[in-house]
Amino acid sequence: MALSFTILARSRSTNARLGRVETAHGGFDTPAFMPVGTQGTIKGLALPLVKATGSQIILGNTYHLMLRPGGSLVEKLGGLHAFAGWPGPMLTDSGGFQAYSMSDINAVNDDGVTFRSIIDGSSVHLTPERSIEVQNQLGADIIMAFDDCPPSVDPTAQSRAAQRLMVTQQKSVARSKKPYDHARRLDEANERTIRWLERCKAAHRRAHDQSLFGIVQGGTDLDRRTRSAGQVTGIDLPGYAIGGVAVGEGFEEIVKVVEHTAPLLPEAKPRYLMGVGYERDSRAGGRAGGDVFDCGLPRGNGRNAFAFTPTGVVRLRNAKYAEDPSPIDPTCDCLACRPEAHGWVFPGVSGGREGPGCYSKGYLRHLFMAKEMLGPILVSLHNVRHFQRLMVDIRAAIRDDDWFPLARRWPVAVPGETASAGDAEA
Amino acid sequence: MALSFTILARSRSTNARLGRVETAHGGFDTPAFMPVGTQGTIKGLALPLVKATGSQIILGNTYHLMLRPGGSLVEKLGGLHAFAGWPGPMLTDSGGFQAYSMSDINAVNDDGVTFRSIIDGSSVHLTPERSIEVQNQLGADIIMAFDDCPPSVDPTAQSRAAQRLMVTQQKSVARSKKPYDHARRLDEANERTIRWLERCKAAHRRAHDQSLFGIVQGGTDLDRRTRSAGQVTGIDLPGYAIGGVAVGEGFEEIVKVVEHTAPLLPEAKPRYLMGVGYERDSRAGGRAGGDVFDCGLPRGNGRNAFAFTPTGVVRLRNAKYAEDPSPIDPTCDCLACRPEAHGWVFPGVSGGREGPGCYSKGYLRHLFMAKEMLGPILVSLHNVRHFQRLMVDIRAAIRDDDWFPLARRWPVAVPGETASAGDAEA
Repeated sequence: MALSFTILARSRSTNARLGRVETAHGGFDTPAFMPVGTQGTIKGLALPLVKATGSQIILGNTYHLMLRPGGSLVEKLGGLHAFAGWPGPMLTDSGGFQAYSMSDINAVNDDGVTFRSIIDGSSVHLTPERSIEVQNQLGADIIMAFDDCPPSVDPTAQSRAAQRLMVTQQKSVARSKKPYDHARRLDEANERTIRWLERCKAAHRRAHDQSLFGIVQGGTDLDRRTRSAGQVTGIDLPGYAIGGVAVGEGFEEIVKVVEHTAPLLPEAKPRYLMGVGYERDSRAGGRAGGDVFDCGLPRGNGRNAFAFTPTGVVRLRNAKYAEDPSPIDPTCDCLACRPEAHGWVFPGVSGGREGPGCYSKGYLRHLFMAKEMLGPILVSLHNVRHFQRLMVDIRAAIRDDDWFPLARRWPVAVPGETASAGDAEA
Repeated sequence: MALSFTILARSRSTNARLGRVETAHGGFDTPAFMPVGTQGTIKGLALPLVKATGSQIILGNTYHLMLRPGGSLVEKLGGLHAFAGWPGPMLTDSGGFQAYSMSDINAVNDDGVTFRSIIDGSSVHLTPERSIEVQNQLGADIIMAFDDCPPSVDPTAQSRAAQRLMVTQQKSVARSKKPYDHARRLDEANERTIRWLERCKAAHRRAHDQSLFGIVQGGTDLDRRTRSAGQVTGIDLPGYAIGGVAVGEGFEEIVKVVEHTAPLLPEAKPRYLMGVGYERDSRAGGRAGGDVFDCGLPRGNGRNAFAFTPTGVVRLRNAKYAEDPSPIDPTCDCLACRPEAHGWVFPGVSGGREGPGCYSKGYLRHLFMAKEMLGPILVSLHNVRHFQRLMVDIRAAIRDDDWFPLARRWPVAVPGETASAGDAEA
C-alpha cells in the first residue's frame, strides 16, 4: 500500500476523528491543512519557512504545472518533490477544477475538456487519462481523480453578485445558448464523474507509490450526493474526497453537504474536503469527519495585506496601524508574530514593551505601502501558521472530545460569533 | 566610543588588512560586504535568510526611509533595528546620493538639495542637518555624512551609452543651460563636502552610540582626491569613506582612485568604499586597504535572473537551463545551491546524481518564467552569499598573505580573466 491511515482517537460528541496518514514521503496528522503551491512553489515562501509553519503536506496544481513547465519536464528533473524541494507528503489535484474555473472552455463532453491555455492561448485537451499521466509524471503521494465539477447551486437562480462568487463554470453557463437545467447538469456531472473515475483508475501507472482518491459530486442536492458517494466508493481506492463544496454557496450549505456526505465515505479511509475553507468551514468539516483540507486563502489574503486572527481579519493597509508596535496576533507563534520562537533574535521596541520584538503592524503596513514583497511573504507565513494552529486545536478538541476550548480560542471559527466569515473589520 | 576597530592581520604584499569592527549591536569582520536594504528590508528576504548568507552588517537607505515611512515614525517604533528586526550592526547612507541620482533635482546650493519625492512628487529639502536628524531617528550604528557627490568623470565627454551608465546627476547635467565645467564641479563638490561635513558633525546628537563617517570626494582627479582626503580627515571621526567611485567609470579608474585614496585615510580607522562593487572591484578594494563594501548588485541582478558564480554570471532565463538539474554554482553553500547545509532535507533528483538535491537551474528558470517571486528570492540569497563567500576568501588571502588561492577560486575577480566584469556569458 502506498498509503496507510490510522485513526488514533474519535470524538464521541461529533463524527470527528484524529488520525495519521503515512506515505512514501513521510506522514501527516489529521485533520490536516494543506497550503496551496500552485506553480511548484508556495508563493514567495522558501520551503524551510513553509516547514516552520507546521505544514506537513502541501498541494500542487496539475493545471498550472501541466501548462508550465510541463509534466514531462518535472519528471525529467526527478518529479515534483525533487523539482520544488519538498521532502514531505504532497498531493496534486486533477487540473479539472482550474480548467473549468480559470479557462475559456471550448468544449466539455464525455471524453474530457478542451480549453484555452491561460499561458499562451493554445488549445489544450484534458481527459481522465491525460490528467493521470501528468500526475504520474509529477509523482505526488496523493493524486486526485479527474472529475466533472458542476456549480454547487443553480447559477441562473443566483443574484449577479452571488454568481460572481461562484468559481465553477459561470462563464460557460453564461455563454451557453441552451437554457441551463441545474438538475440535468448535476446528473450529467455525476455520471461523468464515475465513468471518468473508472478511466482514471485504469490509466494510473503508479499505484505502488501514488494513492488515487475518488471525488464525490452532487452539488447541494443531498440525494445526488448519496448517489454519487455510492458510485464513487464502489470503486476501491485508498481515499475519497468531497468535491464541489465551497465554490460560492454559503456556510450553511457547505455544512449541510459535508455532514451528509462524510459519513457515506468509508470509515477507515481518509476523507479530503476539497477547497475548504475559512476557519468555521474547517471546524465544521472536522466535526463532520473530514481529515484533509486545503485552501488558497492564506496566500491570496496575505498578498492583499489581509491577516487572519482568531477574532477576524486584520487589514494591514489601514492607516490606523501606521504606528502600531504590536504583532498581527499576540497569541500567534509564526515568524512574523514571534520571531524568537524561530531562533531569530529580534530587537525589542525601545521605550515600548519589554522583551523580544516582532514584525509590528506598523512595519508590515510600511512594507505593503512600499510594495515590498516581504509584506506578502510575512503575512502569508502568518496566515498559513494561523490555519495550522487552528488544526492543532481542532486535533486537541477531538482527542479530548472537548470543543469548548476551541470555541473560546477561535471565535472566528464559531458560526454566529462574527458578522461575516473571518472578517472582524468588514 | 560607539565603535572600535581592531586590525588583526596585515598583508605585506598589499595594503590590505584583516580586522574586526565592534558596535553597540555587535561586530563584523573586515573586509566586510553589506547587502543593501533600501526600504527597511533586503528585498524579499526574511531576515533569518539574510543571516544565513553570512551577512553581519546591512545597509539602509535614508533617502527611501525618510520619504516613507519617515524617520520619526521609525523612531517611534524603536529605530530601524527594531522596526526591521535586524539585531546586528547597521549602516545608513545620507540620502544625498539617491537625491542626486534618482530624483528630479530642483536646486542644489550651499545649503542643500531640493528635489521632488519619487513617491508623491512633493518638494523635499535635504540638508546636512536634516540628513543627520533622520539618521539619528533611524539609529544605525554607522551613519554617513551628507556629501556632494559629483560625476566621477566629465559626463559631457562621454558617449551616450557611457552617460547612461553614470548614476549621478546625469539628468541635471543634461538639463542645465549653463555649459558644464567638470573641474569646477569637482572643486565645488569638494568645498561643499567639507563644509557639509562640519555641519553634519555639529548636528549629530547621538555620537555616544552612532558613529559618523566622513566621505572623501574628488572624482577621478587624484590631486582633488588628495585635497579632499586632507580636508575630511582633518575632522576627527570614527571612520572615513571613499565616495563617488563605481558610479559609471571603468574598473581601471576605480582601482586608480581607491589605491591612491585609501592610504590617505587614517590607518587605525575603518575605511568604507561606497558602492563597490563587482567581484574584481571588491578584490581590488580590499588589496588597496578598504574595509567595508556595499553593493546592490546581488539583489538587482537576482531580480533579473542573473546569478553570480566565480566564473561569471549565469542568466537563468536562458532556455538551455530548462532541463538542467544542477545548482547555480556547485561550489556554493547557499540555501539554493546546497539546502542541506542549512538543515533543509531536499529530495535528490531521482535517476540523477547521488546525494541530496538542490534548487536546480531548471526549477529556478521555471520560477522566473512563471513570474514566481521565489525566483528572485532564491537568486538574491545566492548572490548575497556569493559576495559573502568572496569576502571569506579575501579575508583568508589577507591572513595568509597569499592571494593565489583567491585568484584560482575566483577567476571573475581577477582583471583580464573574463571579457567583461562578472559576465561569463556576455
